[in-house]
Amino acid sequence: MCGIIGIVGTTEVASALYDGLTVLQHRGQDAAGIATVDGARLRLHKGNGLVRDVFNSAGVSKLRGRIGIGHCRYPTAGSEGTEEAQPFYVNSPYGIAFAHNGNLVNTETLRKEMFEDDRRHIDTDSDSEVLLNVLAHELQVEDRGNLTHEHVFKAVSRVHARARGGYACIALVLGYGLIAFRDPHGIRPLVLGERVTAEGREYAVASESVALDVLGFKRLRDVAPGEAVIITEGGELLAQHCAEGAVHAPCIFEYVYLARPDSMIEDVSVYKARLRMGEKLAEKILRERGPDHGIDAVIPIPDTSRTAASSLAQALGVPMREGLVKNRYIGRTFIMPGQGERVKSVRRKLNAIDLEFRKKNVLLVDDSIVRGTTSRQIIQMARDAGAKNVYFASAAPPVRYPNIYGIDMPAASELIAAGRTVEEVEKALGADWLVYQDLDDLIWAVTDGNEDLRQFDTSCFSGEYVTGVDARFLEQQEAMRSDAAKNERRSA
Amino acid sequence: MCGIIGIVGTTEVASALYDGLTVLQHRGQDAAGIATVDGARLRLHKGNGLVRDVFNSAGVSKLRGRIGIGHCRYPTAGSEGTEEAQPFYVNSPYGIAFAHNGNLVNTETLRKEMFEDDRRHIDTDSDSEVLLNVLAHELQVEDRGNLTHEHVFKAVSRVHARARGGYACIALVLGYGLIAFRDPHGIRPLVLGERVTAEGREYAVASESVALDVLGFKRLRDVAPGEAVIITEGGELLAQHCAEGAVHAPCIFEYVYLARPDSMIEDVSVYKARLRMGEKLAEKILRERGPDHGIDAVIPIPDTSRTAASSLAQALGVPMREGLVKNRYIGRTFIMPGQGERVKSVRRKLNAIDLEFRKKNVLLVDDSIVRGTTSRQIIQMARDAGAKNVYFASAAPPVRYPNIYGIDMPAASELIAAGRTVEEVEKALGADWLVYQDLDDLIWAVTDGNEDLRQFDTSCFSGEYVTGVDARFLEQQEAMRSDAAKNERRSA
Amino acid sequence: MCGIIGIVGTTEVASALYDGLTVLQHRGQDAAGIATVDGARLRLHKGNGLVRDVFNSAGVSKLRGRIGIGHCRYPTAGSEGTEEAQPFYVNSPYGIAFAHNGNLVNTETLRKEMFEDDRRHIDTDSDSEVLLNVLAHELQVEDRGNLTHEHVFKAVSRVHARARGGYACIALVLGYGLIAFRDPHGIRPLVLGERVTAEGREYAVASESVALDVLGFKRLRDVAPGEAVIITEGGELLAQHCAEGAVHAPCIFEYVYLARPDSMIEDVSVYKARLRMGEKLAEKILRERGPDHGIDAVIPIPDTSRTAASSLAQALGVPMREGLVKNRYIGRTFIMPGQGERVKSVRRKLNAIDLEFRKKNVLLVDDSIVRGTTSRQIIQMARDAGAKNVYFASAAPPVRYPNIYGIDMPAASELIAAGRTVEEVEKALGADWLVYQDLDDLIWAVTDGNEDLRQFDTSCFSGEYVTGVDARFLEQQEAMRSDAAKNERRSA
Amino acid sequence: MCGIIGIVGTTEVASALYDGLTVLQHRGQDAAGIATVDGARLRLHKGNGLVRDVFNSAGVSKLRGRIGIGHCRYPTAGSEGTEEAQPFYVNSPYGIAFAHNGNLVNTETLRKEMFEDDRRHIDTDSDSEVLLNVLAHELQVEDRGNLTHEHVFKAVSRVHARARGGYACIALVLGYGLIAFRDPHGIRPLVLGERVTAEGREYAVASESVALDVLGFKRLRDVAPGEAVIITEGGELLAQHCAEGAVHAPCIFEYVYLARPDSMIEDVSVYKARLRMGEKLAEKILRERGPDHGIDAVIPIPDTSRTAASSLAQALGVPMREGLVKNRYIGRTFIMPGQGERVKSVRRKLNAIDLEFRKKNVLLVDDSIVRGTTSRQIIQMARDAGAKNVYFASAAPPVRYPNIYGIDMPAASELIAAGRTVEEVEKALGADWLVYQDLDDLIWAVTDGNEDLRQFDTSCFSGEYVTGVDARFLEQQEAMRSDAAKNERRSA
Repeated sequence: MCGIIGIVGTTEVASALYDGLTVLQHRGQDAAGIATVDGARLRLHKGNGLVRDVFNSAGVSKLRGRIGIGHCRYPTAGSEGTEEAQPFYVNSPYGIAFAHNGNLVNTETLRKEMFEDDRRHIDTDSDSEVLLNVLAHELQVEDRGNLTHEHVFKAVSRVHARARGGYACIALVLGYGLIAFRDPHGIRPLVLGERVTAEGREYAVASESVALDVLGFKRLRDVAPGEAVIITEGGELLAQHCAEGAVHAPCIFEYVYLARPDSMIEDVSVYKARLRMGEKLAEKILRERGPDHGIDAVIPIPDTSRTAASSLAQALGVPMREGLVKNRYIGRTFIMPGQGERVKSVRRKLNAIDLEFRKKNVLLVDDSIVRGTTSRQIIQMARDAGAKNVYFASAAPPVRYPNIYGIDMPAASELIAAGRTVEEVEKALGADWLVYQDLDDLIWAVTDGNEDLRQFDTSCFSGEYVTGVDARFLEQQEAMRSDAAKNERRSA
Repeated sequence: MCGIIGIVGTTEVASALYDGLTVLQHRGQDAAGIATVDGARLRLHKGNGLVRDVFNSAGVSKLRGRIGIGHCRYPTAGSEGTEEAQPFYVNSPYGIAFAHNGNLVNTETLRKEMFEDDRRHIDTDSDSEVLLNVLAHELQVEDRGNLTHEHVFKAVSRVHARARGGYACIALVLGYGLIAFRDPHGIRPLVLGERVTAEGREYAVASESVALDVLGFKRLRDVAPGEAVIITEGGELLAQHCAEGAVHAPCIFEYVYLARPDSMIEDVSVYKARLRMGEKLAEKILRERGPDHGIDAVIPIPDTSRTAASSLAQALGVPMREGLVKNRYIGRTFIMPGQGERVKSVRRKLNAIDLEFRKKNVLLVDDSIVRGTTSRQIIQMARDAGAKNVYFASAAPPVRYPNIYGIDMPAASELIAAGRTVEEVEKALGADWLVYQDLDDLIWAVTDGNEDLRQFDTSCFSGEYVTGVDARFLEQQEAMRSDAAKNERRSA
Repeated sequence: MCGIIGIVGTTEVASALYDGLTVLQHRGQDAAGIATVDGARLRLHKGNGLVRDVFNSAGVSKLRGRIGIGHCRYPTAGSEGTEEAQPFYVNSPYGIAFAHNGNLVNTETLRKEMFEDDRRHIDTDSDSEVLLNVLAHELQVEDRGNLTHEHVFKAVSRVHARARGGYACIALVLGYGLIAFRDPHGIRPLVLGERVTAEGREYAVASESVALDVLGFKRLRDVAPGEAVIITEGGELLAQHCAEGAVHAPCIFEYVYLARPDSMIEDVSVYKARLRMGEKLAEKILRERGPDHGIDAVIPIPDTSRTAASSLAQALGVPMREGLVKNRYIGRTFIMPGQGERVKSVRRKLNAIDLEFRKKNVLLVDDSIVRGTTSRQIIQMARDAGAKNVYFASAAPPVRYPNIYGIDMPAASELIAAGRTVEEVEKALGADWLVYQDLDDLIWAVTDGNEDLRQFDTSCFSGEYVTGVDARFLEQQEAMRSDAAKNERRSA
Repeated sequence: MCGIIGIVGTTEVASALYDGLTVLQHRGQDAAGIATVDGARLRLHKGNGLVRDVFNSAGVSKLRGRIGIGHCRYPTAGSEGTEEAQPFYVNSPYGIAFAHNGNLVNTETLRKEMFEDDRRHIDTDSDSEVLLNVLAHELQVEDRGNLTHEHVFKAVSRVHARARGGYACIALVLGYGLIAFRDPHGIRPLVLGERVTAEGREYAVASESVALDVLGFKRLRDVAPGEAVIITEGGELLAQHCAEGAVHAPCIFEYVYLARPDSMIEDVSVYKARLRMGEKLAEKILRERGPDHGIDAVIPIPDTSRTAASSLAQALGVPMREGLVKNRYIGRTFIMPGQGERVKSVRRKLNAIDLEFRKKNVLLVDDSIVRGTTSRQIIQMARDAGAKNVYFASAAPPVRYPNIYGIDMPAASELIAAGRTVEEVEKALGADWLVYQDLDDLIWAVTDGNEDLRQFDTSCFSGEYVTGVDARFLEQQEAMRSDAAKNERRSA
């Protein structure tokens, strides 16, 4: 996951981009960067770490200009290095800086075409750099003397024709303005907002509406699947659909876990969707366990599951208790020479309030279960704290397939639910019982907020990929994402 | 506020001190340090910033040894510099490292005595350095050829006789062991724990029991007011009361705000105490507003008030809603040249989920109200989000007096409730109505967990200081803590 | 001035580039960088500061590969920022890294053409970036399917046709190899060397032969004016003259001051040339002052003038004395608040050994006189040390015109000899007498080492620029190089 | 070796201490520090590295005050860590900062006494910290109510009675002033200077007179052996001899190598002493080799030997040639994986100008020969450059014994001349012939500048230690200084 933002303002824009990135930080804490246009110059500052650590006063003060883009990165498969912090930049044509959230599934083909046909060198493993060069090439090809909006829309159409996958992008073209576009399925989110100041009208695009909120921009609408939105340097807004037969199918995992609860995505409140997930889950529990479920307390595993847990508790008529306290300042793990037993990692992240567990039947709630390692440790922690029975509810269905559109998930072989029945997972986790949300209920929980939404990318639950995908690509991903592969890369 | 921890272990102790400090980090994010005994050497590493930023692998790996202390600092009045990161160290006598949480009220006198009588130079404004030198001097005076436990207890008694204020301290004496002690009122907390490993028995002392939990230590008991606990290098535990007429009166603000909910302080669960605060507050609201209070939702102001809000909501029979979302990655504020209107600071910290406010009567709950600036902005934010009526509840009584025992509060003149009636505060905040906890109810909420507790330091609510205090001292504090004074110091 | 180096080796090349840059460091201490080819990747590390400060183990260990280039920068007019550290990089076509020593005189024209015709964005004020893009464009234009040597030579010919000025360049083209070339006058130096190892034959190009010496490469020859030398990835060496009517006219200032004495440039030993400068100067002194010149000691102003001073002293039959000691560790100048009189800057750099001056007639020798500020202070220092008479000799003629081919000299208005007769300079410096080398003698001192050399760029002495130059360009340079202009840029 | 400086000024003193340290930097490049008195505060900044790297604007601007001391460190045996950067500080009594150049030979005894009798903890291996604590203890013992000059002189007398070795020290006592003193043999140098400004009279003490020169202080005299000089905060100067039977015996190696040529030590010009060393050496060569020595050129090994080489060349009637050029920017050695043959280290430091060697008989001159490794490589380099015969002269006698008074020399077993005759060394170095200065000639070369000097510490040549020394101490030193021991410590 990554967070992206772009603003065409009327006054200096760097501190707004900075503030916007801090509220998108949940989408990526690995690296951050900002690029602005300062007269004829591109100003670019990026680095590894949190937004607040990458930027200092000196860094921000160099980012002069009223037009800029920002990016925060969650490392997806194969993109862990420093060099791959975004925005990326190419100087030909025009000077283009580029911020991207998502992942392509035909990167290898494009990478090859890029060099063989276009002589463009891609220097990293990042498919963001590939996508930037595809865009750059198509703009270069279109340009006949001067760059018109028509050429830009045509170039984006060409990008849609060549690239396959999930991508939400903002390009900063020197001397021209911002170009924002989403893939033809609208897998990754991108929202457009407006602010009117004394100096004039300003536009912003961002991964989530919270970034607009914090800056006082009003949300206008989502960028449509396959659409390109241009905001010129002069502040003019233009938009055009650039993909034939675009089929809206956003990633449902945004609602489950990725997005902030206070965001609106595709006109659906993430918060409300999560409340509905809790309600649906309660219905299922009542269905399966009956009214005499014996649950004494619903305990959310902080922080994401709190919303679903609260509606679930209310629907069950059971108090919700904050029995697990998160350590917000967790640091690195240091291993001292000669040290024996290691503090278990979940103990460093979470602490149980024993009084809420002792002699109780507790229902632990999490948004989803991926590897299952943490869930297993928390269930054990609940037992150690004296719980009589420990039940476990997942607000999402079993995660059985990798995500290939930009969410960093482990290889399928490391997903606890891959190839296991619910009963087998229940046993593996050591829960007294385990309940998963049904996929239809999850879909309902989201679409109930916007009935125009009919399709989603639900691949990590269903194994069905909306863009289609080669078996070979999935194999490569599997190989690249395994822990063993990652460790090897890191030590290289 | 500060967090302190000390361990006498059987194997390397630095990573445990590090982990312990990360769970005490809520008590101070300004600076951190660790000192260990490595054979005949004291190893010390400290610096400004969060624990995770101050320590890297190289730093931690130098902190060899199985005995050590750690400290994290919240800047109290006058202690903002780098030089004042703790532990402090003096080389005479023995080599003593020292970590302290609290504040003295007779620092000036002691500082003078230290130099005139004892020729000890105090190089900072920190009263922790003063207290260390008082202890060092008394140990030096007592030592006749070799240091016995009796001498140590006598020296701590002398410290109690000379120092006035709130202090919980851990001293690391080279070649001897740890000495932990609390002031005769037990104002600041300090808890003792034990862990039995394959290599033998280990002891730890820490500001809060959560630090013991994370390390797998079992909480034995609180260090008593006026008591000194010795843990020798050999692992022997000794304790003795060292203050005549010690009267137990812990700081009640620990329960309101400072401590983590999962801590036990004086055998009282902070979490349970906060649940009881919510219940008492609900009773008062029902008493004052009647059952037709018209509240549609209880909305906690994250994070501390969540516990009280949940029991309050339950007692009122009203749903609790997470209508305010906190930005966990908030960064610095950058001001760009020529920039107009500034993003309001509360907007960068909190975002309202409009759906939870629109056309509703909401009760905002906070743990306490200090300056009132943030509360006023949040009330406005609730109105902007469409709330019909905005009510406000404080789980603590009006804060009208400065804290002088180590909690960094503004000068009295900057407290919104100082010199104001509740009605006047209500008006100043712009709330439709405002309710404060009664002091008796607050006291009950805590003592209901441990009936042996009879007295508290409640000075910030009542103006009564358990140690007594000079009017002149209060005046100095007032002058030093004002924003103007702080800005001046910072720019110096 | 800058130093450049490139190697096509048989094994890892980064540490050799690093070592090579340290011996070219006298050509530029402002910034440094290295780029290598690691498989399909370009590895690039650069930054402000000395080579030894820019590179650490981690930085160097990432620079994998057996082909690479390096650069160290002396800030020329307008190129002071961090962004302008070299090598520069463009990704289209091929991926090209570029290191350049020199300065163009038609930058503005090229910059304009680059954008208008080629849509290439130049993001800095550096004419190195312009030159790289000219080369990139010409390569792109030439490439028809695959890049042949013929295309490369043609592209370099086009660069020579478009660019005017002094330039020695090394380009690293991914998938192809190194391209090294010099401007058609050969103003800036570039030398080619070869090393045969067990793994095969290796080639290197560098600004000065000392960089070859330190790495054990044998000097083959200088790259010729207007020539392009290709060293392919496979280790093949090709060369071709690419400029019609190239006229050899190297910069004579290299021999006077810039180059290391142990370098061979155009088959002339810099050391020997300086010895000859001393001899010629002695002849002139004897001519002008007669054998009864009364000089008691010749004292070089360290370090450059030492060689000329030694032959001068020998020819005069007077002892040379190291009466001025240089402080090799000079640091920054800190100005404390309220501080009165400042230590004079030359005092911090040089210290006089009084015994060598007291009651003596001393002849101070410097390689050249630019602003005259330091010379004046040293003459005063000699008087303060008790000298009876202080004479001053410059191994070069009066510097009266700016250098525009890559040597950072002040604006003409700040040159002490500009618009002044020798007598006026003598007076301005406060010398008892002053002697300058004659230009013909300087030229003889160099050509005596290689009689094929017939012409030089002697513009800073003669005002004649071998490339021709617009009056407008000179005016711009004058404006940009004045101290006032520099201070303004720095504070921006 | 270390460099020390102290100033009692009338205005801010930090930038003067900084400038002074930069000209003392040749005495130690390993670490640097400055301490000043800012009202009642001690300001201290120190760290590893060169003076210019340790101090930045922020660091210096905190060093307020008109009284301060500075230190730069060359790592002596066992003092390589960061913690051991000086000045050291103790807070009891008074607050004392301390800078020391030298080495004690009874450290172990004092260290033990310090703890057993005085309870003072010494936290490092540095004997400077021991010496500071001895002084602190003696001041504490003497102080009866207030600190008089008499007490201070008595305390220094006690230090002289307890400490044995070479030491030049400056102590900064808060509220009192500076105390400067040298051991009773005056082994390490310390010089006193004075400056009169508009604000009044200022005093400075420093290791070498060059530090006074650069700051515009006039050299008054050397601090005498066993003397203590007090400069009070009020600017009063007092001095008293504090050691019975002090016998002046300064370290002769200062003249050979350590000191800057422009320093005056014991009223002897180091520069002149070196010229005389060259003359004496010429006499010996003429004696041994006769007037037909066949030497074509004298080539100094830069930089120290240049002075002696110039007088030697003149006395022999042979030209001196700068045939070896030093690389002033030498950096770290990076070893790349898979790399074959390493560049020889001397090649990275020195480059030969072949023309000066080819077919010549050259006499290489160095100030002294310690390990011989570099000398051997340079001789080989001369042969590689085509020299016919390579002769070698050392301006000092054979170094056969370790220095134990603060000069970092290798263990005796690693000295090439230890246990070898001159013929054996000649052979080991591969020289055609080798000549060493005679010890009597060396002594004459120094005493000819000040006939009051009668005795020196010449231990590294003669094995006679002026302070006397235990065999056991020498064994420890031998063990500690071996390369193996150093590598082990560094990797710990």
